[in-house]
Amino acid sequence: MAKKPWEGRFSEPTDEMVEAFSSSIHVDRRLYAQDIAGSVAHARTLNKAGVLSDEELKSLEAALSRVKKEIEEGNKFTWDPALEDIHMHVEERLRGMVGDLAGKLHTGRSRNDQVATDFRLYLKQEAGEVIRLLRRVRGALLDLAAAHMDCIMPGYTHLQRAQPVLAAHHFLAYYEMFFRDTRRFAQCLDRMDEMPLGSAALAGTTFALDREYTARELGFSRVCRNSMDAVADRDFCLEFASAASIAMIHLSRLCEEIVLWSSQEFGFLTLPDAFATGSSIMPQKKNPDVAELVRGKTGRVLGAMTALFTLLKSLPLAYNRDLQEDKEPMFDCADTVKACLAVMARMLPHLAMDRERCADAARKGFLDATDLADYLAAKGLPFRDAHHVAGRAVALAQEKGVELTGLSLAELQGLSDLVEKDVFGFLSLEAMVNRRATLGGTATGRVKEALAQARAELAAEGEGRA
Amino acid sequence: MAKKPWEGRFSEPTDEMVEAFSSSIHVDRRLYAQDIAGSVAHARTLNKAGVLSDEELKSLEAALSRVKKEIEEGNKFTWDPALEDIHMHVEERLRGMVGDLAGKLHTGRSRNDQVATDFRLYLKQEAGEVIRLLRRVRGALLDLAAAHMDCIMPGYTHLQRAQPVLAAHHFLAYYEMFFRDTRRFAQCLDRMDEMPLGSAALAGTTFALDREYTARELGFSRVCRNSMDAVADRDFCLEFASAASIAMIHLSRLCEEIVLWSSQEFGFLTLPDAFATGSSIMPQKKNPDVAELVRGKTGRVLGAMTALFTLLKSLPLAYNRDLQEDKEPMFDCADTVKACLAVMARMLPHLAMDRERCADAARKGFLDATDLADYLAAKGLPFRDAHHVAGRAVALAQEKGVELTGLSLAELQGLSDLVEKDVFGFLSLEAMVNRRATLGGTATGRVKEALAQARAELAAEGEGRA
Amino acid sequence: MAKKPWEGRFSEPTDEMVEAFSSSIHVDRRLYAQDIAGSVAHARTLNKAGVLSDEELKSLEAALSRVKKEIEEGNKFTWDPALEDIHMHVEERLRGMVGDLAGKLHTGRSRNDQVATDFRLYLKQEAGEVIRLLRRVRGALLDLAAAHMDCIMPGYTHLQRAQPVLAAHHFLAYYEMFFRDTRRFAQCLDRMDEMPLGSAALAGTTFALDREYTARELGFSRVCRNSMDAVADRDFCLEFASAASIAMIHLSRLCEEIVLWSSQEFGFLTLPDAFATGSSIMPQKKNPDVAELVRGKTGRVLGAMTALFTLLKSLPLAYNRDLQEDKEPMFDCADTVKACLAVMARMLPHLAMDRERCADAARKGFLDATDLADYLAAKGLPFRDAHHVAGRAVALAQEKGVELTGLSLAELQGLSDLVEKDVFGFLSLEAMVNRRATLGGTATGRVKEALAQARAELAAEGEGRA
Amino acid sequence: MAKKPWEGRFSEPTDEMVEAFSSSIHVDRRLYAQDIAGSVAHARTLNKAGVLSDEELKSLEAALSRVKKEIEEGNKFTWDPALEDIHMHVEERLRGMVGDLAGKLHTGRSRNDQVATDFRLYLKQEAGEVIRLLRRVRGALLDLAAAHMDCIMPGYTHLQRAQPVLAAHHFLAYYEMFFRDTRRFAQCLDRMDEMPLGSAALAGTTFALDREYTARELGFSRVCRNSMDAVADRDFCLEFASAASIAMIHLSRLCEEIVLWSSQEFGFLTLPDAFATGSSIMPQKKNPDVAELVRGKTGRVLGAMTALFTLLKSLPLAYNRDLQEDKEPMFDCADTVKACLAVMARMLPHLAMDRERCADAARKGFLDATDLADYLAAKGLPFRDAHHVAGRAVALAQEKGVELTGLSLAELQGLSDLVEKDVFGFLSLEAMVNRRATLGGTATGRVKEALAQARAELAAEGEGRA
Repeated sequence: MAKKPWEGRFSEPTDEMVEAFSSSIHVDRRLYAQDIAGSVAHARTLNKAGVLSDEELKSLEAALSRVKKEIEEGNKFTWDPALEDIHMHVEERLRGMVGDLAGKLHTGRSRNDQVATDFRLYLKQEAGEVIRLLRRVRGALLDLAAAHMDCIMPGYTHLQRAQPVLAAHHFLAYYEMFFRDTRRFAQCLDRMDEMPLGSAALAGTTFALDREYTARELGFSRVCRNSMDAVADRDFCLEFASAASIAMIHLSRLCEEIVLWSSQEFGFLTLPDAFATGSSIMPQKKNPDVAELVRGKTGRVLGAMTALFTLLKSLPLAYNRDLQEDKEPMFDCADTVKACLAVMARMLPHLAMDRERCADAARKGFLDATDLADYLAAKGLPFRDAHHVAGRAVALAQEKGVELTGLSLAELQGLSDLVEKDVFGFLSLEAMVNRRATLGGTATGRVKEALAQARAELAAEGEGRA
Repeated sequence: MAKKPWEGRFSEPTDEMVEAFSSSIHVDRRLYAQDIAGSVAHARTLNKAGVLSDEELKSLEAALSRVKKEIEEGNKFTWDPALEDIHMHVEERLRGMVGDLAGKLHTGRSRNDQVATDFRLYLKQEAGEVIRLLRRVRGALLDLAAAHMDCIMPGYTHLQRAQPVLAAHHFLAYYEMFFRDTRRFAQCLDRMDEMPLGSAALAGTTFALDREYTARELGFSRVCRNSMDAVADRDFCLEFASAASIAMIHLSRLCEEIVLWSSQEFGFLTLPDAFATGSSIMPQKKNPDVAELVRGKTGRVLGAMTALFTLLKSLPLAYNRDLQEDKEPMFDCADTVKACLAVMARMLPHLAMDRERCADAARKGFLDATDLADYLAAKGLPFRDAHHVAGRAVALAQEKGVELTGLSLAELQGLSDLVEKDVFGFLSLEAMVNRRATLGGTATGRVKEALAQARAELAAEGEGRA
Repeated sequence: MAKKPWEGRFSEPTDEMVEAFSSSIHVDRRLYAQDIAGSVAHARTLNKAGVLSDEELKSLEAALSRVKKEIEEGNKFTWDPALEDIHMHVEERLRGMVGDLAGKLHTGRSRNDQVATDFRLYLKQEAGEVIRLLRRVRGALLDLAAAHMDCIMPGYTHLQRAQPVLAAHHFLAYYEMFFRDTRRFAQCLDRMDEMPLGSAALAGTTFALDREYTARELGFSRVCRNSMDAVADRDFCLEFASAASIAMIHLSRLCEEIVLWSSQEFGFLTLPDAFATGSSIMPQKKNPDVAELVRGKTGRVLGAMTALFTLLKSLPLAYNRDLQEDKEPMFDCADTVKACLAVMARMLPHLAMDRERCADAARKGFLDATDLADYLAAKGLPFRDAHHVAGRAVALAQEKGVELTGLSLAELQGLSDLVEKDVFGFLSLEAMVNRRATLGGTATGRVKEALAQARAELAAEGEGRA
Repeated sequence: MAKKPWEGRFSEPTDEMVEAFSSSIHVDRRLYAQDIAGSVAHARTLNKAGVLSDEELKSLEAALSRVKKEIEEGNKFTWDPALEDIHMHVEERLRGMVGDLAGKLHTGRSRNDQVATDFRLYLKQEAGEVIRLLRRVRGALLDLAAAHMDCIMPGYTHLQRAQPVLAAHHFLAYYEMFFRDTRRFAQCLDRMDEMPLGSAALAGTTFALDREYTARELGFSRVCRNSMDAVADRDFCLEFASAASIAMIHLSRLCEEIVLWSSQEFGFLTLPDAFATGSSIMPQKKNPDVAELVRGKTGRVLGAMTALFTLLKSLPLAYNRDLQEDKEPMFDCADTVKACLAVMARMLPHLAMDRERCADAARKGFLDATDLADYLAAKGLPFRDAHHVAGRAVALAQEKGVELTGLSLAELQGLSDLVEKDVFGFLSLEAMVNRRATLGGTATGRVKEALAQARAELAAEGEGRA
């Protein structure tokens, strides 16, 4: 068994169950690439500070590169719970290769600043990936909008049909949400882009390390400004998890709608076979499993966020071992939000609304009631009165079992003598949609404008940050 | 690739990414034993109902037993993400062994009632295990109490020293918490002890299955009374997670105290080497890692609870695919609370309070101020006035840099002429502790009584339920 | 301004902002009745212990009764933030009435055990009220079931129509959930039914108080067994909040269904005008506001639960001021769950499903596919094959734009020669429902049985505990 | 009783309990100023669009101003639960003043975009206020740092003394946290700075409203780009609550330390009387109530965040009544974080660390062990070996009951012949602190630099945004 780094003073070995309980290697082995990159940068900085000779540096760089290769080739590297974490694994293997020089690499460094560095490197990458996936989802929504510029569907409030809208407009509402998510992740990424190395255990190090050089080597924009904060801070986890949770809320809303639209009752959407599953006992089912699973995974991401907040509550400075528990929820959070975005980006292009069912639904249920009120208001009736008249028209139509446009002119005039023949054209779906022509409204022209603007926006982001 | 059970009607194969996204086999393979036990019981019930012949039953039982063995032997069984879940894996392997008979086993059953049954079987076992571990922790606390009947330490409010208490009394406070936890888990276990099988997809089955027979076969006390509830309900998850979260809160409080007591400032406790770890850079440290990790894991269990509640919010009846997401948080919740209880049960017996440091702390900080007030009240001073005099005695002692018992009789009498020489004996640690002799108080006699009662209670639980 | 009880020793008055920040009287004044009841019981116990004379007791009882009356009459009592909390308010007013005797009442008591007692008394009452409301909701569901024994509707999985079920069966699924809730609250109530008084600040008291007498006076079943646990424990809050959260999850599911059913797309339900609101701009809307609000309030109760768990995490023993923050979330949690149950108990009796729309929906969407498979299986086809044939029948029917029963006998026989003329009767809604006759299934007879059993169960609970 | 706006079509009045249940006026009356400002801006926009004449506008402006005054004067305005919300209250009062013109003001507007506008206006103000308070807290921390540049205390990891640090450095760690909070709130504020008005119920309005004009009138930077998103979005709540929760985590950590430092065991801090409270039964206590309460309120803010996330999960577009439940958690969240920051900003300037106790603690517990290892490493011993020697030195010192510097030169040399006389100077507190001179380290020079940089940063923020 490997020697623990602190064993000099302990007279008793670690209890076996404690060892298993406190080992984190099954979790943090994921950070191997970041850990090795961090060690390479630290070695170079030690060399610059005169602690390591050029030869020692070269030897360490070569060995670290070999360790990485061994890990990546899988079967060559031995993982041992007794070696606690990824840092010890790398160091121990290094020792096998270069002997005592491995220990020298730990000069001016502690596992506290080392793990904080590894973790930030990892999450920066994850945040970048989330941003790329958000862009793909946004792109897919824009394509959907473009493909549904001619599809009129009911817009809902309280899940009651309210007013006709373009399906394109509906899809663009989700574009807005994911646009905000992109910005949030970009700012989160920017905020976590600070390097902890050089903070050592908590107080800084006695070696003259050029931290800005190390930061540049590792691709960090800045160094953490306070060594105690550097090892104690997990804001980057909390902020990432919050941003991820907000994005999941958006996905849960979209998925709820996909589930509704795929139901026989709505019938707005038939999922392509490749994106639905069947039932083992009910052959007729085409279940919107993907949407259901994404919706369900919302809980998981919110759970990870709760775990992280609870973890950090009331922890005194600087490092506490509790912090080891940050990794699993964080990994699960990032994995989940990425998987959900990826599968949505894949499924969205295959959605096609059933134009006929949508329009049919938009025609039924008195979605033109507001417009009748507007029609009357435009002719001078105070709005609240116009509203009242429209309400009575609905009641009359319901009584007769027709829609508003199924009432005769005479019947309508019986309710208000302001009604004229032009009311029927006024109440057509297209007219209703296109009359909502304020900035941000559902009128075709406005939606086209919005689509063009979003296309340009997305293109401008390119591969750069949001 | 294996055929999906619903493929008859689908013209397109499932998208690969969707398949990976929706597969749960990496998670639910844990339920293999429960799944196979459920299948055996179902086969017997089908046989009883005349659906399966005796020979068919025998053949299925033998095959299911072989599948189980293959899985347990590890390398013989092939796990394939395309086969979605544990139910399909078992069925597919069964088909390889017994052909179409495998399909016949699915008569009158759906994956909806099947997974609900597997999951309840699993959690019943976990709840039983948690109860056993809670009892071990309670036993360890009783032993600690017994061993610390002579250790007087400061009792704290607001983390300020308040009144001297027996360390035994302090440990018994935790016994009470874990006693309540035991009861909660026992009631939770009892409530989940209902069998879903026979509910099929959601409406019950057309085959004349004797559900009570199946329940007996599987060790369930009752059958679920409503088939829709049976497949939609996850109360047992929510309740288990809530009970686990409360238990973790208790552990977090105990661990917080272990961390405090192990600090150089308190110095009440020296952790045995086997239960502490060192620092790679600070050789003098003996870090209370176990306590910190358990405290940190509180977040994880609360996170799992949040995940489960969020998952279930607003789900219409009956089964929705979202429910697949119940397993990972639930498994992690159960694993974590078990691991934490087990490691605490292991560590607690090794704790030994430093009697001298404890008593010394109890002597400093005017913990006898209340008793001085009581002394005066006993001599007839109204309580609030007695309190006021005691306050001034503290101020005087602070000014002189002594404790209350360091003041001279004359000085005390200067504050109140009710003070007599007996005040000094009245204010000894032992006298103070033993005077708190109401039921539930810290007086040695009372604590002994409480310990004896708890011992009897724990013994009475035996291997039965709490 | 009133004197603080500890001012004897402090040389500086409390900072004004701190006073406002730490005052809790705006919240805990709700506990006035419990606080006064607790004081009466404590006074009697002090009298029994010889601390208060009979006359003093009489005088205190009379004065406490007057304080209560003043508070209840509203304008006579002065609330003053500087007096921190309800305990100080009552004591201060008492002092105005009986002078120093007011202080004497505080003998052997601390605000720590006092507030724990008040809070438990309050929550016991709230738990009782929740149980009564749960019973009303359950009763309403039973009435709904009785009224809908003839209403066949689609049962859903994945929000896809799956199999026809009795609406009565669907309502009884919710009965089961609220039945479990009733049991959970009853056990929670039982567990919190322990009295803290006599624990004083944390260590018990030096006065010979007969705690079991006090408990009887206050209607507690038992006394808290450990004084430190008594003042530090808030399990009763966590457990109440967990039980309330589970109940809210059930309500959120029911409300989600009411919202769906009230949509034009489903059209299963028309809300009575008295339980819907309209829109200021869309006169045709009948919004299911009550259901939406209850669903929304789920978040609030889960939020309260999170607040309480977070609050308690890592608090060392015994009392900490953080605990003051337990009241607002707890009050809000109890108020919310009570309001939601009450409004549902009021609304449910007015729901009436549209039998025609329900049956119509159950007839469309191939809900008989499973039964066709069962039909074939009953004729000897292996279940998986039968399933496959049924799948192809669905595909054929879809192609022809008909339901399964719209296919000709010849067409069905083209898929499997096992099909005979009796298939059409086999696939009628009633036949399908009544064939699911296993215990817990949707067959009319089973549902009637379940209803009768539930009626008896509810009646047996009577006014006693669940 | 007032007429509901939709009553035209309803034949039955709203159920009384439903009315009470769904009324929100007790909560949203807080938004009166925002609601009236929104109405004024909307009236001006309607005037610009030709819907209202100049005279009508003038009359509405005057009346709205009167309504506002009435509300602010308190007793003149009647609040009526039957009038549901603040919008109806203002409109109804307006109707009393200007008759039907009040209804006309509702042209092209819905309560959906109206409440979204009010709420954003309110939260923008709250975010601004939080930013100002964060700056005050940061300023107080800088002052504390400046005042404690000469105070050396133990830095902790695992709550074990680890290395000596400047108290100033410790305070600056918190400055960093609140600096990040400031940035987060500023970005949150910027993101919510978009105006919903003109989105009407969900689809935009048919009136030619100049939304950018309205936005300018109300001080919004931009208009919401999609009308459906505008009424459905509550990202601004989720993001505000997340940022507030992170800030509370920081406060909980700081308060935990204040509680620890105020304990008799640590003794680093004596709270000024004005910021502590006493105990009713233990006259000697000076309880850190403010810190405890702030720590406890962390739960409350996390609870509000949970409530909001849960609320929004799975809500389909666009407006749903569930959203009414956003206000109470949001108000409580903002109130709480503001109150906590304000009271901390008030208390922090009064904290004074006990230099002697701090230094004394830093001298005990082998905090110089790392430095001894560094000393040896600097003389050429490989770091891991140096660490090992230091560990043995600690063991020896413990055995002898002295600190490391209490060992004789000979004794040290017995462990390693690299030790020379200069070791004692090397291990003085000041030398140890000042040797940690990397960027971000605790060396006095570095801390002074950091303080100056922070001062400049805070000054530069001025009254502008962070």
